Amino acid sequence: MTKVVLDMSMSLDGFIAGSNVGKEYPMGVNGENLHTWIFNTPKDKVDAEVEREMFAKTGAVILGNRTFEVGVDLWGDVPFPAPSFVLTHKGRETLIKKSGTFTFVTNGIESALQQAKAVAGDKDVRLMGADIAQQFLRAGLIDEIQINHVPILLGDGVRLFDQLGIKNSQLEKDRVLDSPHATHIRYRVIKKEK
Amino acid sequence: MTKVVLDMSMSLDGFIAGSNVGKEYPMGVNGENLHTWIFNTPKDKVDAEVEREMFAKTGAVILGNRTFEVGVDLWGDVPFPAPSFVLTHKGRETLIKKSGTFTFVTNGIESALQQAKAVAGDKDVRLMGADIAQQFLRAGLIDEIQINHVPILLGDGVRLFDQLGIKNSQLEKDRVLDSPHATHIRYRVIKKEK
Repeated sequence: MTKVVLDMSMSLDGFIAGSNVGKEYPMGVNGENLHTWIFNTPKDKVDAEVEREMFAKTGAVILGNRTFEVGVDLWGDVPFPAPSFVLTHKGRETLIKKSGTFTFVTNGIESALQQAKAVAGDKDVRLMGADIAQQFLRAGLIDEIQINHVPILLGDGVRLFDQLGIKNSQLEKDRVLDSPHATHIRYRVIKKEK
Repeated sequence: MTKVVLDMSMSLDGFIAGSNVGKEYPMGVNGENLHTWIFNTPKDKVDAEVEREMFAKTGAVILGNRTFEVGVDLWGDVPFPAPSFVLTHKGRETLIKKSGTFTFVTNGIESALQQAKAVAGDKDVRLMGADIAQQFLRAGLIDEIQINHVPILLGDGVRLFDQLGIKNSQLEKDRVLDSPHATHIRYRVIKKEK
């Protein structure tokens, strides 16, 4: 069954990007340190397996327009080899890239989710960007959260869990994998009846 | 050698207490869920060992006046069986409790630290409260951070790592212990030369 998955690398102080995210600093100031576990050479075995799995299980991606704009040239492709849905206020034509398409969705997260699920097969729908993550959390639409806890303090930046407006949501840990660069903890979101 | 240790139970969204901390809610609304790993029955073996160690290694405590005021009746004693130093703006006489004393320090964190180190022997100086933690972090006075990562989203409350005004501080993980209720990660703070 398709799961909606939030999978982010987060500093100990809660940031998934540094300050001043933009073309100059795609991950914000010092934000690239959040992905040492991916870009380190040689790569730790645990980290390599987590990364492999992340790509293998992604059947569709939902991202915000800001993440799209900052990332599109950098990736030179879709961020994952899968159809990508960009939540935006201004419609535009579908963009075809080497490993997938960017489809621009103007009628909200539920519509994006429906379109993403329709193409994800038995793989996961992956969310990108703090704003999208927060919208989906508030709407109770996330099944699984994987946080790659990175042992740094960024001091400033883009917070993942901010202004959620949710109350006391219990999670269930179902896996902990550890490397020197990250502790990968996977949480199942325990759904309350609606 | 005496280490200065920050050891806190933190929700996935970064809170070490819920909202509205006070006499009615000593840990804030839903904040008691942060300590399930301590108060659960039967206690998980990993959690029990972490708790035992926490008490065994505490040689002195530094806390803020607000934590003192909220906690003193609740504890009916000092929070740990060790001399406790309360940072406050208004001096008062030392308070003698069953397992230790509360000494009130009005001349700042460095003085409190000096007094705490003088009595800690070869044990640790433990910090309590987000405000104290942040002051010590900013001053670069913390040697070790243990975060008991608790799998809940509180949505609101007292943030541990907030407004730090520090930049990109690298940590080194030196231990990860896991139970269903908490992932206990110990980080060494890598000191930069002053």
